[in-house]
Parts: sequence; C-alpha cells; structure tokens
Amino acid sequence: MTLLEKTVQNISPISNEIIKLAQERQDSLTKPRGSFGRLEELSIKIAGIQNRVDPQITDKAVFLFAGDHLTVHEENIASAPIDVTAQMLRNFVTTKGAGVNILADHVGARVIVTDMGIATAYPPSLDIYRKSIAKGVKNISKGPGMTREQAIKSIEAGIEVVLDQKTNGLDIIAIGEMGIGNTTPSSAIIAVITGQEVEQITGYGSGIIDEKLKRKIDVIKEALRINNPDPDDGIEILAKVGGFEIGGMAGAIIGAASINIPIMVDGFIATAAALIALKVAPMCKEYLISAHSSVEPGHIAATDFLNQQPLLDLGLRLGEGTGALLGISLAEAAVKILNNMTTFDEAKVIKAKERNTL
Amino acid sequence: MTLLEKTVQNISPISNEIIKLAQERQDSLTKPRGSFGRLEELSIKIAGIQNRVDPQITDKAVFLFAGDHLTVHEENIASAPIDVTAQMLRNFVTTKGAGVNILADHVGARVIVTDMGIATAYPPSLDIYRKSIAKGVKNISKGPGMTREQAIKSIEAGIEVVLDQKTNGLDIIAIGEMGIGNTTPSSAIIAVITGQEVEQITGYGSGIIDEKLKRKIDVIKEALRINNPDPDDGIEILAKVGGFEIGGMAGAIIGAASINIPIMVDGFIATAAALIALKVAPMCKEYLISAHSSVEPGHIAATDFLNQQPLLDLGLRLGEGTGALLGISLAEAAVKILNNMTTFDEAKVIKAKERNTL
Repeated sequence: MTLLEKTVQNISPISNEIIKLAQERQDSLTKPRGSFGRLEELSIKIAGIQNRVDPQITDKAVFLFAGDHLTVHEENIASAPIDVTAQMLRNFVTTKGAGVNILADHVGARVIVTDMGIATAYPPSLDIYRKSIAKGVKNISKGPGMTREQAIKSIEAGIEVVLDQKTNGLDIIAIGEMGIGNTTPSSAIIAVITGQEVEQITGYGSGIIDEKLKRKIDVIKEALRINNPDPDDGIEILAKVGGFEIGGMAGAIIGAASINIPIMVDGFIATAAALIALKVAPMCKEYLISAHSSVEPGHIAATDFLNQQPLLDLGLRLGEGTGALLGISLAEAAVKILNNMTTFDEAKVIKAKERNTL
Repeated sequence: MTLLEKTVQNISPISNEIIKLAQERQDSLTKPRGSFGRLEELSIKIAGIQNRVDPQITDKAVFLFAGDHLTVHEENIASAPIDVTAQMLRNFVTTKGAGVNILADHVGARVIVTDMGIATAYPPSLDIYRKSIAKGVKNISKGPGMTREQAIKSIEAGIEVVLDQKTNGLDIIAIGEMGIGNTTPSSAIIAVITGQEVEQITGYGSGIIDEKLKRKIDVIKEALRINNPDPDDGIEILAKVGGFEIGGMAGAIIGAASINIPIMVDGFIATAAALIALKVAPMCKEYLISAHSSVEPGHIAATDFLNQQPLLDLGLRLGEGTGALLGISLAEAAVKILNNMTTFDEAKVIKAKERNTL
C-alpha cells in the first residue's frame, strides 16, 4: 500500500459520543445555554476531532507550502514577477517579517515552510523542507501541469511533513501557501469540482488589472477545455490544472486528519486544496475548519461545497495561512471556554429555568 | 467644572497626520497593498487614537460594570432571578471561571469589576470597585429609573475607574456588563436614539419565552411613553430609561477617549452605552471599535448609528465584555502587523508594479 492509501485508510469518523459529552459540558457552564454561539460549536467539533472531551490546543503550527506556476508567467497574467515566490521564502525563514510570521508569533504557532516546486533560486541555507517536485508546474493552458505521479508525490510530501512535525507536538494546524499566480489553478480546481462558471469564481488575486482578469479567465477556460479533468478524480484534477503547493496542502489535510488533528483552512487557494483533499479522502471533511472568507469571488462556492461557514470575514486576501492563524486563536479561545469555565454547580449560580437557547 | 465636563473637554480629534503616516507604513509592508483588509484599517485607526505611528497594545483591561434592574424583576420579564447578578460578581473575582475570565486570560487582559448598583448582597471581601448608586434602577415603566444627578454620577464613576486604572498601564480597553434584565433598558435607549420601532429592536435577551418577549416590548413602550426622554439628551435618556452599569460603561468610554485609549465595544448593551456616550460627548465616536455582531435584533440599528461595522460575527450573546476581548486580540494582531512586518526595502522583495489594491 502507498503512503497515500495507508494515510487515507487511517482517517476515522468523528466520535458522536465525544460530541455528545462535550455538548453536555458546554450546557453546564455558567452562561445562558448557547450564548457563546459559534465558539461553542467550534469547541465541540474540536473535541470530536481530537477524540477527547477536554481538547487541547497548545502546540500549533502553520504549514506553508510554496510553489510556482509557469502558466501565469508565460501568459502574462501574474500580479508580480515569478522570483517573488523565492524572495518571500527568505522573508519567511530568515527575515521572519512576513505577515505569516507576525500572526504565527501572535498566536504562538511554529512556521513550517516547504518548497514544493519553486522556479527560481534561493539560498541553500534556508531552514525549510525540500520536497521540490519540479521548478514550477507547466502551463496548464497548453496541457497538464504535472503528471499523475507528480500529483501523488506532492500529496504525499504534505503528509510526510505533517507526520514529521507531529513528533514535535501538534494539536492543531493551519495550512497556507505562497506561489505567485496560484489563484489561477485554484479557480480552475473550484470550477471543476463545484461546477460553477469560470467567470463567476475568478477574481483579481493579489491585484491584477481588469485587462489581465479577462485574459486570466480565458486561460482558465482553455486549461479546462484542453485538459478536461474528471470532476470526481481529485488526483487527476490536481495533476491537470493544479499546483505542487496545492497538492502539499491537500496532503497536509489528509495527514492531519489521519492523526486526529483539526485543520484550520486559510482562504481561496487553501480551500481549493481542501476540495482536492475531499475528493481523495472524503472522510477528511469533518476535520476541516474554514477560517475566514476570502475576497476572491470563488471562495463562497468552495466553502459551500465543503458545507463550511468561515469563522472570520475581515477582507483578507494575503494567503500565507494568515487568516487560518487568526482562526487558531479563536479555536484556542473556544477550547479554553469548554475546559476552564466553571459549571453552575461549581460557581453556586442559579441556572435560569426557562429556555436558554435561541 | 464637573469631572464629566472636564473629561468631555479633554477629548481631542484624531490626528489626520498620524493616520496618513500609518497608511504609508501599511503600504510599504511585504504584502499586496490592502491585503490585510480590515486589520489594516484597524491598525491605522488605533494609530490615530493613540496618536502615534507605532501604536502599542500591551496593557489591556476589560471593564465590567454590574447593576440591577427592578423593572424586569417587578414586571416578570427576566430570564433569571435578580440574585444572579451578585452571584456572577463572585464568579468574576473569586472563582474566576466566568466567560470573561477565560477570554481575558486568553488575550492577556485584566478584569476590572465595578458594582454600579447591584440589588442583592455579596461578600464584602470581593476585590471590586464600589460605586453603587442605588440597589438597582427603579421600574422604568412606572417613571424614571434614576434621577439626573444619579445618571451623571454613574457616568463619572465609569470615568473615575478608567482614569484610576490608567496608572497601572492601559493601552486599550474592552467594556462589558453584567445585569439581569439589562437588554430591556438597552432596547429602550436604542429606540429613543435611533428612532426605530420597539418591536424591531427588542429580542430574547439571555433567552426568555415568546410570551415574555411580548410583555417585554409592552414594558419598553410604556417606559418610553411615560418618560418621553429627549432623544438628544444622553443624560436624560440614561436617567429615565437606562441603568447604572450602562452609565458606567458610557463613562468608561468618555474617560478612555479623553486619554487617547481605543475602546472595544462589546455587544448589545455596551453599544447602547456607546450611544449614550456619543450623545454626551460626540467626539468619542472616533475612539470606538465595535467588536462583534450581537444576535439581539436592535444591535444593527445601534452600530449603524455609530457608523460601525463589527469586526466579528460569531453569534455571541453572553455579554460580560467577552466579544470585546476577542476584538482586542484582533487589534493586537493588527498593531503587530503595522509595527513588525518588514518593508519591501528591508526584505529585498520586488514590489508588484500594477495596482495592488482592490
């Protein structure tokens, strides 16, 4: 059995018994029943995922997968030069002054960076996982971006990185990415899997001009026409119109789900990866938490498909797992409420007799 | 000059120069311009309030004002017995296991509790500010809840508590409350100031039954009919249909604004207090940050009146400043982004040449 097959097989259904016990605990705490709203649901979900009534969120990490896309370079629809992906890598691990570093520090999470397929050079000394599959995925508007074997390899790289980091302690993960031009494959993936029109789910990414948006839509349509991926085959979709960092994120999701770790999913591109993960391993769906609403127009279609209502809506569109890190802070708050609040009995407070749910 | 008059006079307009410099700093950071969305706006606003380009959020406190309401007790429209206010006070400062304690711990904030007018007894040893004006406000459906002098005294108590805590260090405050039945005066205040119909802005509070909701609406209408407060006189509105803890929160807002401290406003009742503060000291408007959307139907009318779009929407309806504490965590993240991210120059990353705002 391959690593991917074995890992998919290891994903268990969430325990209904734990969910029930966690709900009972929430209802015994000194507050009107349900008054912590979505934080109550979140704490109960995490209890189910971790398979314990007193879930813990102490060891946290954001997994940042980086890769390049020759499509946007060759078709001139990127918002920045292809070199920026490698330059930002150095910012993540040396300067440590990127958005992800600041928010990881804020929530107490490690930043774990993986090169999945960066096109340009970076200093060999960088402290990152090296899982590069090729120097960028090929132009998807001319044919498949990668082979099926490369797609599987990218997913397995994501699994390996998460399982490796588990040995350093890991209670929750955020997934994020860096890759100039990777909203293009993400829109393609979301179009295939949700069945939405490309025009409806394609946006400005990091900020291209209107003329490039038109061209971007044409490129995605051409990629779907020429490759015609099977909407039920996640690996085929990833291979034909995806990206290495998207495969890495899908693998991180599958890997985390296989060891009962909740996954905080960042914005547009990470959600495209979650759709791939879902097609490869449907049972990972219950392990996902959508952190925030992206401003990319296709994000709603993708989160609807995952049956997720994002926790935050702050107009973020940076990527790097930044929104997912803010979601981790909420998850930690939710779990502390569940574990640390006093019950009515402990606090000797009279419980309201009437309905106290809305 | 009274303390209230002096404090109102001390509130300065926000510095446009600082706002401009903070915006320039945001635009120089290694991210597509505007990609941190509302966190960028938030950091710039806090820079303006604190009157420094590098705003600090280190010393944080949640100010919890507690008071009782004889209206809901006498008219039988409360969700819980009046004793619960005093019981929760003990939970806040002795057991320290209430929702506010857990979230204050999560964001690193002090919990500052003030008795503004609790009706029932509590242990004399509790570590709280004692500013009790009376043992609960009178039944507002029979006449004014308090005198004009008491209303001013309640606002001044809030000012005093904030100014006193400033000496322990204070960079941002959250305001919250505890008071069984205090959605009733809050709906009354919001109806008067926004001009909305009572039916539109009155909800279930902590969870009353439908029959009581009808009665609650009738009680509020009667309170407005019999008292007929002047919609432009904040002190009169507070005196006739408000509450002592609502006055305390209004005072905390005015006090914080007078010393350049941003105020994270909790949900429905705290927002009613913000409306009072605005009527008493219009200039405090720019110092307010609406933390979260309450499930109470009148909250939208109130935040619209303040020209605020709440940061979070998590279905919270607990009060105690819990939502405001989560808002403080976002404010801290926003300020860290502004201060600590590297600029394009520092990180040697190529800045995208195209428009990078959306």
